[in-house]
Amino acid sequence: MSRPRRCLSLLSAALGLALASVAAPADVAAQDPVAVVRAYRERHEPELVAELRDFTALPNVASDSQNIRRNARALVSMLERRGVAARVLETGGPPIVYGELGDTTRPAVLFYCHYDGQPTDPGRWVTRDPWRPTLFTAALEAGGRELTRWPAPGERVPQDWRLYARSASDDKAPIVALLQMLDAWRAAGLAPPNHLKFLFEGDEEAGSNYLAATARRHRDLLAADLYVMADGPIHPSGRPTAVFGLRGIVDVTLTVYGPVRPLHSGHYGNWAPNPAMRLAQLLATMKGPEGDVLVDGWEDDVVPAGPAERAALAAYPGDDETERQQFQLGSIDGHGRPRAELIMRPSLNVRGLQSLFVGAGARTAIPDVAVAELDLRLVAGNEPRRQVAKLVRHIERQGYRVVADAPDSGVRVSTPRLVRVQSDSGYPAGRTPLDQPAARALVAALARAGLGDPVVLPTLGGSGPAYVFTDILRGPFVALPTVNHDNNQHAENENVRLGNVYRAMEILAATAATRLAARQ
Amino acid sequence: MSRPRRCLSLLSAALGLALASVAAPADVAAQDPVAVVRAYRERHEPELVAELRDFTALPNVASDSQNIRRNARALVSMLERRGVAARVLETGGPPIVYGELGDTTRPAVLFYCHYDGQPTDPGRWVTRDPWRPTLFTAALEAGGRELTRWPAPGERVPQDWRLYARSASDDKAPIVALLQMLDAWRAAGLAPPNHLKFLFEGDEEAGSNYLAATARRHRDLLAADLYVMADGPIHPSGRPTAVFGLRGIVDVTLTVYGPVRPLHSGHYGNWAPNPAMRLAQLLATMKGPEGDVLVDGWEDDVVPAGPAERAALAAYPGDDETERQQFQLGSIDGHGRPRAELIMRPSLNVRGLQSLFVGAGARTAIPDVAVAELDLRLVAGNEPRRQVAKLVRHIERQGYRVVADAPDSGVRVSTPRLVRVQSDSGYPAGRTPLDQPAARALVAALARAGLGDPVVLPTLGGSGPAYVFTDILRGPFVALPTVNHDNNQHAENENVRLGNVYRAMEILAATAATRLAARQ
Repeated sequence: MSRPRRCLSLLSAALGLALASVAAPADVAAQDPVAVVRAYRERHEPELVAELRDFTALPNVASDSQNIRRNARALVSMLERRGVAARVLETGGPPIVYGELGDTTRPAVLFYCHYDGQPTDPGRWVTRDPWRPTLFTAALEAGGRELTRWPAPGERVPQDWRLYARSASDDKAPIVALLQMLDAWRAAGLAPPNHLKFLFEGDEEAGSNYLAATARRHRDLLAADLYVMADGPIHPSGRPTAVFGLRGIVDVTLTVYGPVRPLHSGHYGNWAPNPAMRLAQLLATMKGPEGDVLVDGWEDDVVPAGPAERAALAAYPGDDETERQQFQLGSIDGHGRPRAELIMRPSLNVRGLQSLFVGAGARTAIPDVAVAELDLRLVAGNEPRRQVAKLVRHIERQGYRVVADAPDSGVRVSTPRLVRVQSDSGYPAGRTPLDQPAARALVAALARAGLGDPVVLPTLGGSGPAYVFTDILRGPFVALPTVNHDNNQHAENENVRLGNVYRAMEILAATAATRLAARQ
Repeated sequence: MSRPRRCLSLLSAALGLALASVAAPADVAAQDPVAVVRAYRERHEPELVAELRDFTALPNVASDSQNIRRNARALVSMLERRGVAARVLETGGPPIVYGELGDTTRPAVLFYCHYDGQPTDPGRWVTRDPWRPTLFTAALEAGGRELTRWPAPGERVPQDWRLYARSASDDKAPIVALLQMLDAWRAAGLAPPNHLKFLFEGDEEAGSNYLAATARRHRDLLAADLYVMADGPIHPSGRPTAVFGLRGIVDVTLTVYGPVRPLHSGHYGNWAPNPAMRLAQLLATMKGPEGDVLVDGWEDDVVPAGPAERAALAAYPGDDETERQQFQLGSIDGHGRPRAELIMRPSLNVRGLQSLFVGAGARTAIPDVAVAELDLRLVAGNEPRRQVAKLVRHIERQGYRVVADAPDSGVRVSTPRLVRVQSDSGYPAGRTPLDQPAARALVAALARAGLGDPVVLPTLGGSGPAYVFTDILRGPFVALPTVNHDNNQHAENENVRLGNVYRAMEILAATAATRLAARQ
């Protein structure tokens, strides 16, 4: 079963554009876990940079099993250096690195990150090598210059400097921020404020194919009172950002059949039905002119937003108009409702269309088949099989016979309207209600950290395996993005702004110190 | 201006499948032009095969100007050997070979053929060389064996033998049949029954880019009382086949715009309009569930079929049900009317669709653009510009702004529904009414030839430059297909069945002898 993550990493897209700096109050208590982290970091920025450099120097594409295991071994060592009891959980694929630290009688906070990175074309990198970490004085686009030496102990490293390397942001920076946070507490003699668990996955960019099975196999080991997914870019305001859910997804392929081979459009054009036209007509029944999904019962099983969610949406600092202009959209679906609210609904997206050829390859023919690729985003309450079944019923109501496999000639010749519907297994959404006690405690912890009012969203529009935490491990879940939005994740010249890593340490420290009720 | 022929050559598709042999009556008069041709051919089959062999040995792709000129020079010699006054008409591209013969005071019959052939991949030919003509004892599919020697003078060459070479059928066999017909008449001392003209084009498979201009430039030279296009495969019954028109065509490309780049379908999927869905919705307005074109006024300017056309359609020996089974179609457009009747109507065919990717390349994104390629087949009365204008008005009525060029960001951001409509210049249909005197005279001539009742169609579904003859040269037009349907034209292993060439000589002789009224 494939479980593509579909760019949870694109939190950037959800959360915005430009990072504004936010001042923190100066009078935090000396032994406050956040203040301790800041004070330590200000004296150890070169060490942080060096650790991130050494870690991103390890090639980390999930399918490169030899290098993935080098990453896993390095992670175990990095954890053990901080006194974390670390081990590898074998999965059958890239290993999961697990570790824990602190008083096991206290509530547990589990931090989930991934250490694998997207495949990439080295030739398109300015450094010519995605795994040769390189320090620049700013973003390339802002005229950043390559630095010829690494910062020496005791030096300060400016917030705007950037480390360029694959996974610098996605998702090795949060891992290093967590480890440096542990160093800060150790140096200050501060015990971890909760029982801390670490779950570092090596298969996220390849689809998290082993995460759900690992969670089922190690249910007790991975039990926690709060699951934190540290991945993705922070809200452009720089305010601590907490997203309490991710959508699920299921992919559907529709194939409408015409003649068994393309036919001459002159000789057969008014006689042989055209599968591209029929596919268009079929798709057209699925959505209204404003983008409303017209499939019967599409939202029947959706868990409605409660008062806390509605309040968060109302307070969410979105800027849809700027994005409309940026993307050059002349109109917007959804009857003028804000995007943050619209992503609380299940979607039906046509992600690909094809029938014969366009452009120079176009031929005057009636196509033999027409294919549409759909992705259905699921929200809390939706279930992948059920959502696909609604779509199939809708298609049948349009007069189509729906088949799962490629039809034989007997079926084709005897079926007036024939469509093949294929779907993957998909996975459901995971969402924790905002009035859940751990969710409330986390938002309070972030608010206390003095890093600005938290930005809170009930769910992200993107999909990811939040359900592993909410539905399999049955705990409260939050995604906590921290890196710069312009980090080029999944593309060439991925980078992280060091100021974001510094800030991540404090956000993660506040999170680790969340005052949670003891587990039931 | 590009004028693609769009596979007029696919007359095969229009006309059928299997060639049945038809016996001819034995008691034809000795000096009958058709009987003379048959008697001569029976004694000179090896000469016919040798001429076709030598002619098809010349590579003849239109873009290969050196070889195209070799073909033209060869044709001039071949015509001159028969006493035809032959010359080259320069076009700016592949030359047109023109010739004439016979009594200039008699009505003129102009035979149009093309001597260029489709480009091809030699490696896919069983002979490894499309221009190494090879004789086989039957079709390859029927177990035909390659012959190691060429027939010697005086031998008979069986009807089922086939010559394999590029353009063996499309369209060099009809040229050789015409020339051998002239030999037969010369040998018998028979003067050409009409003033004969020959127009052999070298650019047909590349789109007949120079034919219309040549016709305008040489209007008097090319004046005739009957224009005969000798191209394409005969009706499967083997009965002489006369098609009095070809459809016109104009190509249209629709591009619907979404965001300026593909967007993450999770974060933006309920908010950013999807151009693939919008294109589907737009296309869906253009045709009804039975394939009726719903564009206002689509058929308003069509010249209606008269009594003669209706009678021909009623008598046409089509077999739609066999084709439905063969093409594995579960239903048919057009409310149960026969295909031969449906192709009398202008069409709207979606020949290509694309938006992002399908299959393994599919990504969870909202596409930036969606493209549909359409071909509009035109019938007598339609005009390319006018037909496109009807479509544009229809699109505008759906709330779209239609632009001709790629829109800039200002247009995109300020236009709720935006579509780019591009079209080529296209060309109109050409059709000669069946009750036109020359058309009636031709059908009578074919009926008298003793080759079976003529199969008569008012128009072919395919497109071709019939309008050059009907609208520019202003004479009656007929397409007269003669070769075997299974000739693999445009593909590898093109071939011609020799029996079809023999029969073509007689059909063309009957045509050349049509009793035409003198020109006005």
